[in-house]
Amino acid sequence: MAESRDKTPAPDSGSSIPRAVVSRLSLYLRELQHLVRSGQETTSSNQLGPLLGFTDAQVRKDLAYFGQFGYPGIGYRCQELIQAIRGILGTDREWPVALMGIGNLGRALLRYKGFEQQGFRITAAFDIDSEKTGTTIEGVVVYDAAEMEEVVRRYGIQLGVIAVPAEAAQGTADSMVHAGLTGIMNFAPVTISLPDHVQQVGIDLAIELEQLSFAVVNRHDKR
Amino acid sequence: MAESRDKTPAPDSGSSIPRAVVSRLSLYLRELQHLVRSGQETTSSNQLGPLLGFTDAQVRKDLAYFGQFGYPGIGYRCQELIQAIRGILGTDREWPVALMGIGNLGRALLRYKGFEQQGFRITAAFDIDSEKTGTTIEGVVVYDAAEMEEVVRRYGIQLGVIAVPAEAAQGTADSMVHAGLTGIMNFAPVTISLPDHVQQVGIDLAIELEQLSFAVVNRHDKR
Repeated sequence: MAESRDKTPAPDSGSSIPRAVVSRLSLYLRELQHLVRSGQETTSSNQLGPLLGFTDAQVRKDLAYFGQFGYPGIGYRCQELIQAIRGILGTDREWPVALMGIGNLGRALLRYKGFEQQGFRITAAFDIDSEKTGTTIEGVVVYDAAEMEEVVRRYGIQLGVIAVPAEAAQGTADSMVHAGLTGIMNFAPVTISLPDHVQQVGIDLAIELEQLSFAVVNRHDKR
Repeated sequence: MAESRDKTPAPDSGSSIPRAVVSRLSLYLRELQHLVRSGQETTSSNQLGPLLGFTDAQVRKDLAYFGQFGYPGIGYRCQELIQAIRGILGTDREWPVALMGIGNLGRALLRYKGFEQQGFRITAAFDIDSEKTGTTIEGVVVYDAAEMEEVVRRYGIQLGVIAVPAEAAQGTADSMVHAGLTGIMNFAPVTISLPDHVQQVGIDLAIELEQLSFAVVNRHDKR
């Protein structure tokens, strides 16, 4: 997330958890799920940290923002910690997601298997191309963008993904806000303006490659 | 980038520029390019900051890590600042990029227009499926993964993108390192281990959605 800004940590205050901690929670969750799939029932900060390239102290400090999860002599119970982290991230429920734009990226996202595993289901897709609207791709109906408000209400959708060209991104975002969405993931390579009550994550793939080229050129820093 | 860790700022030391500053450089570059396309020749921190949701002081502080770019009474000359930022990010040259895995995501990346605009060209693609190898997609030849070392050397490729399934990611990464790549962008939802001299950016799309659901549930924080 290129837009991330540093925040000052303040334990036990839900409104001031540093972004980096929340990012690492997702990594802990992903690793715990791998461990469970490989048959492991318990783990420890000594195992979890090094698997992810962090120290064990980092793991304990991050989790301490949210409570006490370890057991003396046992460590963490994987399933229990998975449930706890899902509760913190809000993914202990399934989120219906709206997808805007059925170009190459939109189609790839419709076929992406990783969302449902983590509790996100693309429930409706939208496009302005009449050759696409009315079709079904990967089981998801493509609606006309004009139907967004009605469809979003029908399925109780809060999250939306922008996969339209840069020049259409702000207009699409405005429509999404008008339709009632409160969280937007933006793949268009442009900064969009949103009202304060709408949350945003921006993913610009070229920016990520720029960060990589900077790291290679300067070769000082492992990610 | 979920794996990002906080670093302590230390002006004028190339080896300790905070990650967040480098991320914002990319955003400044993107916005400057938009301004130039719309015919603007100069700008200022007062314009650039608010366009991106930052303060003008933030813009000046970030750029001050790398030098003095403004002119009294003029502000920043857009093209000059673009060239300077490209120089810092290492994108004042074209980077050939290798793509690993021609599934849905790999195909979408081959068709993605945003890379070349920023100086990245997917030069070779690799897969293990003999039905795909030998074909050409969007003008890019798909090679057998066994040919990686030879092809990487032939085209002088340093950067590679992993778009293979999670279970194949570490093996693919090992092959990439063996072939001589020094920067890896990993889309597989798994943490990969790399030697210290190889830089890494991880993009897990489900993790980005988790960060969004956390923000919506807690609704405290604009990104």
